[in-house]
Amino acid sequence: MTENPEFYMRHALAFAELALQENEVPVGAVIVRRSTGEIIGKGYNRRENTRHALAHAELIAIDEACKTLGGWRLPDCALYVTLEPCPMCAGAIIQARIDEVYFGALDNKSGAVISIERMFSLPYNYRPKIYNGILEQECSAILSDFFRDLRARRKKQALARKAK
Amino acid sequence: MTENPEFYMRHALAFAELALQENEVPVGAVIVRRSTGEIIGKGYNRRENTRHALAHAELIAIDEACKTLGGWRLPDCALYVTLEPCPMCAGAIIQARIDEVYFGALDNKSGAVISIERMFSLPYNYRPKIYNGILEQECSAILSDFFRDLRARRKKQALARKAK
Repeated sequence: MTENPEFYMRHALAFAELALQENEVPVGAVIVRRSTGEIIGKGYNRRENTRHALAHAELIAIDEACKTLGGWRLPDCALYVTLEPCPMCAGAIIQARIDEVYFGALDNKSGAVISIERMFSLPYNYRPKIYNGILEQECSAILSDFFRDLRARRKKQALARKAK
Repeated sequence: MTENPEFYMRHALAFAELALQENEVPVGAVIVRRSTGEIIGKGYNRRENTRHALAHAELIAIDEACKTLGGWRLPDCALYVTLEPCPMCAGAIIQARIDEVYFGALDNKSGAVISIERMFSLPYNYRPKIYNGILEQECSAILSDFFRDLRARRKKQALARKAK
C-alpha cells in the first residue's frame, strides 16, 4: 500500500471537480507509477458530453497510461478513483493488470468490487489489491451534492413547464 | 432474437480473420442496428499491435457504434462476437444498454457471461438478452488453431535457441 493514498485521491478528486464543472456525474481517476510516484494517466467522467458509453474516468485514465507506457500491461501502477468501479472499469483493471486499486465512495447501484459483486475475488486470471474508503466522505459528498442539485434543477424545470 | 444470427456471426468471424492475419488472438465483433439490419460498429482484437489494454473487439465496435449513433446508449442494437465477452466487455455492454448479445465460443478462462460469472444475471441496472453457441464450432476452431500454431512456433523458437 502507498504511504499516503490520500495524496493521490486528492488528485482524483480534482478531476472529479472538472467533471462537475461540465455537468457530468463527478467521478475522477488517476493512475500512478508506484516506483516514481508520477501520474501517468488521468481522467474524469465525460459520458454525457462525449455521448460515449466508454467515457468513464477509469477507462480514460487507462487509455492514457497505456499510451504513456507503450504496453497493454500497466505493471507497477496504482489506480485511484473517487467512486467504486463499475463492471466495465473493474474488468479493464484486470485487463491492464493494474497492481493496486484505491477508491473512495461505494457505488451501491453499479459497484463491481464490493457492492453488486466482488469481481476481484472471482477466478479470473488476475487480481489487483484493493483499498476502499480513501477520503470516502469527500468522494461521497461531491456525488451527493451533484445529485441533490440535479433533482432540484429537474423539479424547478417541471414546475416551470406546469406554469406555462 | 434475430431470424438469422449466423448471418451476422459470419461477419464477426470475418473480422476475427483480420485479427488472425495480424497475429492477434482471433476475436471479431459487429454491432447491428436491429430495425435496419445495418452494421454500425465492427472490431477485432488488436491488443498486441496497438499495445493497448482496451483494444478488444467489442470495445472497438462499441466505440464506433457510439460515434455512429451519436449517443452513449445503443438501443435497438445487437452485438455479435465470436468469443464470450470478458468482464470489461460485458460491463461495456451494460454501459451501452445493448439489447441483445450473441456469442460463439465459450471462454472458460475469462468469460463473464456464463463461464466465470453470470454478470448479466446480477442486479446491475441493465440486463441484455443473451444467445450463446452461435456458429460455436467455427468460432472455437479459429481460436484453437491459432493457439496450436502459437505453441508450435514457440517450441520451434525454443529448440532453435537451444541449438545455438
